Amino acid sequence: MGDTTDELIDLARQITSRPPERELDMLLATGEQISCSLLAMAVDALGYPVISLTGTQVGITTDDVHTKAKILDISADRLRKELIHNKIVIVAGFQGCNSNNDITTLGRGGSDTTAVAIAAALKADVCEIYTDVDGVYTADPRIVPDARKLSVISYDEMLELASLGALVLQPRSVEVAKQHGVTIHVRASFNYNEGTLVQEVAKMEKEIVVSGVASDLNVAKISLLDVPDRPGVASHLFKALANERINVDMIIQSTMRNERNNISFTICRDDLDKALLIVEKVRDEIGAGGIAFGKDVAKVSIVGAGMITNPGVAATMFSALAAENINIEMISTSEIKVSCIIKADEARKAVQALHRAFELGQQ
Amino acid sequence: MGDTTDELIDLARQITSRPPERELDMLLATGEQISCSLLAMAVDALGYPVISLTGTQVGITTDDVHTKAKILDISADRLRKELIHNKIVIVAGFQGCNSNNDITTLGRGGSDTTAVAIAAALKADVCEIYTDVDGVYTADPRIVPDARKLSVISYDEMLELASLGALVLQPRSVEVAKQHGVTIHVRASFNYNEGTLVQEVAKMEKEIVVSGVASDLNVAKISLLDVPDRPGVASHLFKALANERINVDMIIQSTMRNERNNISFTICRDDLDKALLIVEKVRDEIGAGGIAFGKDVAKVSIVGAGMITNPGVAATMFSALAAENINIEMISTSEIKVSCIIKADEARKAVQALHRAFELGQQ
Repeated sequence: MGDTTDELIDLARQITSRPPERELDMLLATGEQISCSLLAMAVDALGYPVISLTGTQVGITTDDVHTKAKILDISADRLRKELIHNKIVIVAGFQGCNSNNDITTLGRGGSDTTAVAIAAALKADVCEIYTDVDGVYTADPRIVPDARKLSVISYDEMLELASLGALVLQPRSVEVAKQHGVTIHVRASFNYNEGTLVQEVAKMEKEIVVSGVASDLNVAKISLLDVPDRPGVASHLFKALANERINVDMIIQSTMRNERNNISFTICRDDLDKALLIVEKVRDEIGAGGIAFGKDVAKVSIVGAGMITNPGVAATMFSALAAENINIEMISTSEIKVSCIIKADEARKAVQALHRAFELGQQ
Repeated sequence: MGDTTDELIDLARQITSRPPERELDMLLATGEQISCSLLAMAVDALGYPVISLTGTQVGITTDDVHTKAKILDISADRLRKELIHNKIVIVAGFQGCNSNNDITTLGRGGSDTTAVAIAAALKADVCEIYTDVDGVYTADPRIVPDARKLSVISYDEMLELASLGALVLQPRSVEVAKQHGVTIHVRASFNYNEGTLVQEVAKMEKEIVVSGVASDLNVAKISLLDVPDRPGVASHLFKALANERINVDMIIQSTMRNERNNISFTICRDDLDKALLIVEKVRDEIGAGGIAFGKDVAKVSIVGAGMITNPGVAATMFSALAAENINIEMISTSEIKVSCIIKADEARKAVQALHRAFELGQQ
């Protein structure tokens, strides 16, 4: 049923380029309702007691932000009633209803988030998420053959990995899990292997400094050159991008002679054309010099909860890349990750080198 | 969006030949939800305030009979709230929810019925039903060129016409309208002509003896021959047919010599094959002689609220048919209609003759 949402959006587009978001939610919510009723029929045909429920029927209350609503509460009375009667309950993900009884959808990552939120409401021991991989790995096994499946990972590490292009779990679902202390078990749909537990990790285990290496090729870089050094210039630029909903990831400002700067930043590659139009306008408005941009960049990152107490980690990363003659164009760090922008065609080699440097392949 | 329901049923059939009816309703209800949200988008694009609502949101409470539920109550609070805010309200027809908050569908005729039930709940002056014809005619204008549009027709007459193959309104919706005294205005979608009002007709107007002529070609006739004349035989036959949900329309039993009878009856032509299997089984069980059947029959009917006080009407009908050399195979009458089974290829000629005989073409 994977294409249903796209087909529904296409139906709406045939009518209007700007459908009201409330009506779009009314439309899009049918997709999961269709697939969960069909799944219930399949389970019934196998001879098990089953019932499908919409977000409204489950009592998933959200805020009023149509097309990207946030879950406020799950009453779960109906869920409990069906579970007590030994029913297999199939809940339509990605949807809820607001206090006005209008149908809302949760936007990107909404289905995983529904699962975790229901687990929280039921105080379930674990929320199993079935996916097309065996669990969370120290690196992409297609790039690093000796990548190792992690048996446990902390919420924060998973969040960094998730937002860094290791698309096993939607970041939103991990946030909700962290907030409510729900243990997620990421495992394969097609075998019975144990996967990876995502949970609050005890202190002792934090001594594993680096848990994983991730790379993301969906990156583009834009530089605004020769920018006058006066207050409000950067704010003007990034506000203009935010207004068009372009997510800016890494930002570097470098001071030049003559009190003029270069500002470089990265965005999703899909947003490049849209962003360039905005940057050109801003360049004229603020009197900057020129614009440079490139799609041939990638982001490689190391993630680990123990990093904060181990100051040498970033240095090890830079050395490992330098040893491979890989040039670092931009750097950003958080408490539990270090990311570097490098040339796209060196990403594979970089991930392999970092996986080796932090000895992630060995137990 | 006309094929959506068929497509959804097809999806269910791909999974199982016997989907649970509760889940089938969960699935089928999405069809109207999709089309009413798309319609709301179209109205919004024209610049009018609009909102779409599901059966659940409108508070359409039904009984528990999934796939053919009956409406028990409409709370209408939400509807009134939106109307007070000057919204054009689009309600998903054909659906509601039972006291357990499960989604139900109303089955055949459910969309018209929803409209009439909402009009009743809101105590609306009129329920306008937009269709592909201008209104209710004295006969099918494709058969009788001087057929006349009726400005008013009674509920009972409309019910007879509706169930006799003049498919302007679903009979269920007329029943609900009669029950709650809702005036229905049947009119065309593509022009502003006044259509036909369906309402309680004052006595004086009942002097119009015959209001319309209808024909129905979706008829087949089966005769069970040489049936022993003992109690319970007819009951056995028609119970067996009812168990397989085959609707029997007209029944004639004719006594022969030797205390054996013929039983003839008519059914929908689509049910013929299924019915013959049952009749063959019953024949063996009761020791009847043989079976005759034919698809080449049609039902022609005259309908009129004034008929009951005008005993000569049936005689006029039979004479008019006889004058055209049309043989009558079966006859059935009610307080406001007379129906005759004739040869299918004579149906057109019969309708024209009856329309002429009762002077329906003249005001």
